[in-house]
Amino acid sequence: MELRKGLEDIAIKETSITYIDGDLGRLYYRGYSIYDLASFSNFEEVSYLIWYGKLPTQRELADLKSHLAEERNVSEEISTFVSKVAKTANPMDILRTAVSMMGLEDRREEGLVTKAIKITAKIPTIISLIQRTRRDQKFIEPDPSLSHAENFLYMINGEKPDLNFSKTMDVALMLHMDHEMNASTMACLVVASTLSDIYSSVVAGISALKGPLHGGANSEALKQFMEVESPDQVEKYVLNKLSTGHRLMGFGHRIYKTMDPRAKILKDYAREVTEGKPTERLYKVAEKIEEIGIKILGKRGIYPNVDFYSGLVFFSLGFDTDLFPTIFASARVVGWTAHVDEYLLDNKLIRPKAIYVGDLGKKYIPIDERQ
Amino acid sequence: MELRKGLEDIAIKETSITYIDGDLGRLYYRGYSIYDLASFSNFEEVSYLIWYGKLPTQRELADLKSHLAEERNVSEEISTFVSKVAKTANPMDILRTAVSMMGLEDRREEGLVTKAIKITAKIPTIISLIQRTRRDQKFIEPDPSLSHAENFLYMINGEKPDLNFSKTMDVALMLHMDHEMNASTMACLVVASTLSDIYSSVVAGISALKGPLHGGANSEALKQFMEVESPDQVEKYVLNKLSTGHRLMGFGHRIYKTMDPRAKILKDYAREVTEGKPTERLYKVAEKIEEIGIKILGKRGIYPNVDFYSGLVFFSLGFDTDLFPTIFASARVVGWTAHVDEYLLDNKLIRPKAIYVGDLGKKYIPIDERQ
Ligand SMILES: CC(C)(COP(=O)(O)OP(=O)(O)OC[C@H]1O[C@@H](n2cnc3c(N)ncnc32)[C@H](O)[C@@H]1OP(=O)(O)O)[C@@H](O)C(=O)NCCC(=O)NCCS
Ligand SMILES: CC(C)(COP(=O)(O)OP(=O)(O)OC[C@H]1O[C@@H](n2cnc3c(N)ncnc32)[C@H](O)[C@@H]1OP(=O)(O)O)[C@@H](O)C(=O)NCCC(=O)NCCS
Repeated sequence: MELRKGLEDIAIKETSITYIDGDLGRLYYRGYSIYDLASFSNFEEVSYLIWYGKLPTQRELADLKSHLAEERNVSEEISTFVSKVAKTANPMDILRTAVSMMGLEDRREEGLVTKAIKITAKIPTIISLIQRTRRDQKFIEPDPSLSHAENFLYMINGEKPDLNFSKTMDVALMLHMDHEMNASTMACLVVASTLSDIYSSVVAGISALKGPLHGGANSEALKQFMEVESPDQVEKYVLNKLSTGHRLMGFGHRIYKTMDPRAKILKDYAREVTEGKPTERLYKVAEKIEEIGIKILGKRGIYPNVDFYSGLVFFSLGFDTDLFPTIFASARVVGWTAHVDEYLLDNKLIRPKAIYVGDLGKKYIPIDERQ
Repeated sequence: MELRKGLEDIAIKETSITYIDGDLGRLYYRGYSIYDLASFSNFEEVSYLIWYGKLPTQRELADLKSHLAEERNVSEEISTFVSKVAKTANPMDILRTAVSMMGLEDRREEGLVTKAIKITAKIPTIISLIQRTRRDQKFIEPDPSLSHAENFLYMINGEKPDLNFSKTMDVALMLHMDHEMNASTMACLVVASTLSDIYSSVVAGISALKGPLHGGANSEALKQFMEVESPDQVEKYVLNKLSTGHRLMGFGHRIYKTMDPRAKILKDYAREVTEGKPTERLYKVAEKIEEIGIKILGKRGIYPNVDFYSGLVFFSLGFDTDLFPTIFASARVVGWTAHVDEYLLDNKLIRPKAIYVGDLGKKYIPIDERQ
């Protein structure tokens, strides 16, 4: 039996959802380049694409949009619970519990994507409940006339976002929606393969995304930008960090050996949303860290990844730093549920083995004779 | 890249926790035969063994017992929540949410096994809250003078169990505590490998165990016994079931190709706890199904597994049928947490891949030009 701890280079499924070309730095959803989708599309359209495998017609898109908009409200129980714990608990713990409660409340027999739409619609409401409760701000009711991205920002900031902000949010969400296999998607599949329900799968996905090796790097990357006073301090900062055995956060990827296309796209938006704002300093530092980081690490295939600029973008859009992983989850839930749906078409229980390396045949000694 | 959907025959880790010999039908925890442990040991001692790798001294056992006994109470919030939903929600959904709430409430920095002890201590309290609320019975406070198994039955039935019942419960729990790798343990490991917290791992384990391919077979097995009126109807029933393409529930196992040792042990206890009771009929039917089932399926290596008699045992001890998977979880949590602890000694992020089989290079067509 082979020991394959990280399951590196083992394919758990065939997929027609996402393709990553790690050498060329390319990413495709359902065969469409992430560059085209980021330029021309939006959260709802790409959700449709990922779930159903094709771009929607006007009618299909309008249906999904209104379905998502209708499902934004959470139950009284969930909103009471979230507001009660918002000031003290970890946001990913809150989100994990809230989605688990959703599953418990939802007793309808429905298709998997219908459930997925509900979860996707409600997560931003939970996130905004957390942030606004903590800041002692009044809860903002979701506005069904707004798009998913617009409404998300509206519920966070209490005012309708301008076009620039809502486009940025749309793009940031699109870039996080799927990434082929990864730890959280794997957690979803393991759960689904026992024929458990889709809420249980998503809860497992959130549980995995919570880990700092997965969903936590974006806030760490942002912290770095905050630690450096000005671009001319960057070189010293980076050299010091690396020579003391630390990693540059937001750099490196198991698959990309060149610049992550999502980082490239987010960089432009990060520049735009920080221009002329107090956060502009952070952007300048980030840009310099990128330059120095690539100079030092690039030859080993270590380049900026999606988390390098996403934290700065989320921060500029008004989100608290420790909410970043929940925003990641709010988008990735589309990929999680699509992968589960695809896996269940030809399900196989995921049951690996372990190699026994302990002793055998030990003799049970009664407790009063033990040393 | 190899496609290995179920991860069959792939080892995700080395372990010195559990060894299964599927051909000879043997099971060892930390090198001790399950037969010895079932005969001589108890829940607390085997928990110690699985977590710490050795049998405890008197002092170590006393410490763990009192630690477990002290931790049985759940918070006001959790007990209010559980009682509120007990009559309408799925017990595994309730347990998943309750453990998620525990994680959110527990803000202490502590070792993994300390957390595991808390979760293990509290799960029976949640299960009894569910059952007693549904039956409109008063909640029974945990009694710290009772052992884990005794207290569990006491909180369910409202009276202290006799020696026979508590020994049966101890054995049933010991037999479910670990089983090397399996879907729920894998879900725990995937989550842990991102360096997420232990509550998140256990929540993922419960999410996976909920699936009928994993934790649901014991109640299905019991249902079969209830469907047959008497032992002389069994042959017809089994033949009819198999010839109509159904599986015999509680038969067959990915690893055991002979009788599961846990089934052998549970059979004796099932006989004892049903003797002279109305459930004796169910035992007689079960015994006959076992005989006929082995006659037909045994030559293909399909024999009774742990779920064949466990449902009948849990039922006889006073548990509602749909609570069986939660009892399974109450014991397996020891194995889940021990495997996470072992994996984290030399962690590697679990990140498989997928093989892309879709199209590439599709051209984005504006929505008003789509067909
Ligand atoms: C993402 C990540 C875990 C992928 O790593 P991986 O493919 O498993 O590769 P490894 O962790 O084995 O690293 C390989 C080598 O590159 C180095 N390396 C990888 N990422 C690095 C980084 N961000 N800064 C400095 N060195 C890095 C490692 O130190 C290691 O060097 P060594 O061989 O001398 O020990 C890793 O790049 C990382 O930790 N990045 C920082 C955190 C981050 O941004 N995570 C977000 C992921 S989207
Ligand atoms: C546990 C189980 C999933 C393991 O199965 P597996 O090793 O993956 O094997 P498969 O499901 O591929 O079954 C192999 C063959 O044995 C047959 N088989 C397996 N279990 C059977 C059962 N309980 N009754 C009748 N036939 C069975 C299958 O039909 C299949 O036959 P085929 O090759 O003619 O199609 C399977 O035995 C099962 O479904 N059992 C019933 C449910 C149960 O008791 N689950 C509890 C597990 S602890």
